[in-house]
Amino acid sequence: MILPELLTKLSATFPNDRMLTDPVDCYAYSYDNSRKIFPPDAVLFPLSAQDVQCAIMLCNQYKTPLIPRGRGTGTAGGSLPEVGGIALTMERMTTIRSIDIANRVVVAEPGVLNQSLQEAVKPYGFFWPPDPSSAYFSSIGGNIATCAGGPHAVKYGTTREHVLGLKAVTGTGTVISTGCYTTKGVVGYDLTRLLIGSEGTLAVITEATLKLTALPDSSSGITAHFRSLVGCAEAIVRIMALAKLPSALEFLDASSLELIRRRQPDLLPADTCAMLMIEVDGTRAEITESIDAIIQACQSSDLIVAIRVDDLAALWKARKALSPLLREIAPKKINEDVVVPVSSLPLFLTSVAQLCRHFQIYNVNFGHAGNGNIHVNLLIDSDNATEVIRASQCLDQIFDLVIELQGTLSGEHGIGSEKRAYISKEIDAHTLTLMRNIKILFDPNDILNPGKLFPTIS
Amino acid sequence: MILPELLTKLSATFPNDRMLTDPVDCYAYSYDNSRKIFPPDAVLFPLSAQDVQCAIMLCNQYKTPLIPRGRGTGTAGGSLPEVGGIALTMERMTTIRSIDIANRVVVAEPGVLNQSLQEAVKPYGFFWPPDPSSAYFSSIGGNIATCAGGPHAVKYGTTREHVLGLKAVTGTGTVISTGCYTTKGVVGYDLTRLLIGSEGTLAVITEATLKLTALPDSSSGITAHFRSLVGCAEAIVRIMALAKLPSALEFLDASSLELIRRRQPDLLPADTCAMLMIEVDGTRAEITESIDAIIQACQSSDLIVAIRVDDLAALWKARKALSPLLREIAPKKINEDVVVPVSSLPLFLTSVAQLCRHFQIYNVNFGHAGNGNIHVNLLIDSDNATEVIRASQCLDQIFDLVIELQGTLSGEHGIGSEKRAYISKEIDAHTLTLMRNIKILFDPNDILNPGKLFPTIS
Repeated sequence: MILPELLTKLSATFPNDRMLTDPVDCYAYSYDNSRKIFPPDAVLFPLSAQDVQCAIMLCNQYKTPLIPRGRGTGTAGGSLPEVGGIALTMERMTTIRSIDIANRVVVAEPGVLNQSLQEAVKPYGFFWPPDPSSAYFSSIGGNIATCAGGPHAVKYGTTREHVLGLKAVTGTGTVISTGCYTTKGVVGYDLTRLLIGSEGTLAVITEATLKLTALPDSSSGITAHFRSLVGCAEAIVRIMALAKLPSALEFLDASSLELIRRRQPDLLPADTCAMLMIEVDGTRAEITESIDAIIQACQSSDLIVAIRVDDLAALWKARKALSPLLREIAPKKINEDVVVPVSSLPLFLTSVAQLCRHFQIYNVNFGHAGNGNIHVNLLIDSDNATEVIRASQCLDQIFDLVIELQGTLSGEHGIGSEKRAYISKEIDAHTLTLMRNIKILFDPNDILNPGKLFPTIS
Repeated sequence: MILPELLTKLSATFPNDRMLTDPVDCYAYSYDNSRKIFPPDAVLFPLSAQDVQCAIMLCNQYKTPLIPRGRGTGTAGGSLPEVGGIALTMERMTTIRSIDIANRVVVAEPGVLNQSLQEAVKPYGFFWPPDPSSAYFSSIGGNIATCAGGPHAVKYGTTREHVLGLKAVTGTGTVISTGCYTTKGVVGYDLTRLLIGSEGTLAVITEATLKLTALPDSSSGITAHFRSLVGCAEAIVRIMALAKLPSALEFLDASSLELIRRRQPDLLPADTCAMLMIEVDGTRAEITESIDAIIQACQSSDLIVAIRVDDLAALWKARKALSPLLREIAPKKINEDVVVPVSSLPLFLTSVAQLCRHFQIYNVNFGHAGNGNIHVNLLIDSDNATEVIRASQCLDQIFDLVIELQGTLSGEHGIGSEKRAYISKEIDAHTLTLMRNIKILFDPNDILNPGKLFPTIS
């Protein structure tokens, strides 16, 4: 529990309307998209880097955990106050400090929503490429802390490619400035990317200098329906071998399609076993050329139909319908976001299907196939103890397979608390020790988001 | 001087043909493109990560500096054994371990030349975007250690955008693996980018996993000649405001052109005061559209002529002629590679001209204007003591101007030894201290490239 003395000192900087201590109020800051619940003992709403610094310094003094929080849309538990402590929610630092179109740069506070940023720059013909599915309500700070990706990463890259510099306060309360304002810059160590994806364990981001990208002239798409999983996976490999990358290449497996059919019986052909939604962007001529090449790459005896879909809302309809359905069907879903090299997708997807059959686990796979980034969902009843054990064994083997195929355990969700039991499968002990020592360097008292990202030392 | 005991121990791993100790032999490893000369006491040629680890561990034991070296093409003195010690040249680790076209990935040893890599992947329709002017003879390891850029960075980004993972040995002799093999991956801290641009001060890179990019369909260009510097700089701003980025946008000022005229009198129009060489790539239709838009953006009363040049060798002719000429004209050139936001180029370039007039320093500016990255050259006679002092004062004011305009002191050359006196102008004391502590964490005995990248503590 938080010492009253600490709260009294914090109240000098955080007045009543910016500090919650009533457990009922705090409860709203106890969960994220991992479905776990860990209520904080207090919630602080900083408005400035100085406020953040004050909170960190006092938490150091009282050795109290401080858990930075964007909008709580993460799926790996990264923003949950697992061991209690104080939630530091950045939701009121929502100023876009400058929009500098001539230099394609925006400077924004961390609480700015991804969507608000997009709306602010769209009239000038620009966008900020990171587009997690939570883009409407997730914050820039959270996007940066997790190195968020999304469907368009296949062409545009993830968050780390679109941040030029940061201001942040480390776990010692030290204010640092990283990176620069320009597209090139090599002065000193790259602390910008060290902070991107560090899940609030090293520093709290208080300002971000973001690189904008010009909106494409236009976009169009293709939906492709396949009779078999393998036929679909092989088409993905052929599409990704084309010189021009699609701007999105999303995959839905048979279980995903089955879920959609239950809600929208007429949306999909009856014999579709796997489906691709492909988006291309550029000039109209480029798009036509790309679509022809992609439809050609889809051809095989397993293809049912591949057709151009100019209406992007229609293109994404099946994908949009899926996520909430997954929630409805099972009381618990183990939601992974593994990545394998694209050429290994046929082997990976068929092996996952085999493993799930073997362990009798209901499995739904979909995701950003162009990056080899598959959301593997194991849908289980957490009251069924043997099923929970089987799912855990199944997941363990899926992760081993990912590593064997030179993949990675997380493409965009991060480690948080959900995946830390597995991080040693991917990162060797020496490298992990070095990462731990970086954590200690930035945050010697282990104040910032303690316990996250690293395996628990037993 | 190196202890005979250390050399004896090293010789167990490094036989005669992979260890130089004769000063005459070592001399070839005493210089780089900074024109400074610091002979190493010995030179080692590792063939494997184990060799590198052995060298680092023994140098730790004997507290002897070990200076990693690519091909010695850097301009900032980063590879020079300033305080003596052993040069660790990676030039014999030249194996391309795999070319995985389906996944657009190459795994290479650090000594592979940039050009060899390009030749290896070109037949498959790919390239690796970093293209420093030394690409023909610089190594991948050196490119990574300096985060090399080049003319095409304006469209394709610099080295940090094109490396997926690294294997390296830290200053303690610890072998680490960073990043992953796939285009997405967020497991653990981003040590890959921490090493990129760290100039051999944290770890020695022993293997790199590189991301390939598809070669464009075709390329073409424009040369644009201007009557005034300001007219040219304003055209740069207008070109960079177009949605589609050029694949290169290079600038030459009046002094650069004057140098070229002396050697090739008929190459340039007589009244050209500033020139742009612009490259665009993509489909033929895209190129035509882009070229029209860029020629339009060049229009002003200061434009002499802007014409399409389909022959890229002809396009780059003036630029290629320049670099060696700079060497001939002055016994010493202070060669900077500052960056300012593109919109500040008109103000920056006119201010630099004013400063150089004021300090009576012969000044030549050219470079990657699309990134705002200008090679500011102060040509001086180092035997002229007052000129040296004036140049130093002038440079100091140029750097102040860069920082005032939200620029950075180095876009691609790095700090090395040449720029460390100025790094505090850009990086605040707290952030520098954190960087120093990262250095200590990776290399507690300050074995790896000691003294580089950081300001000397007085």
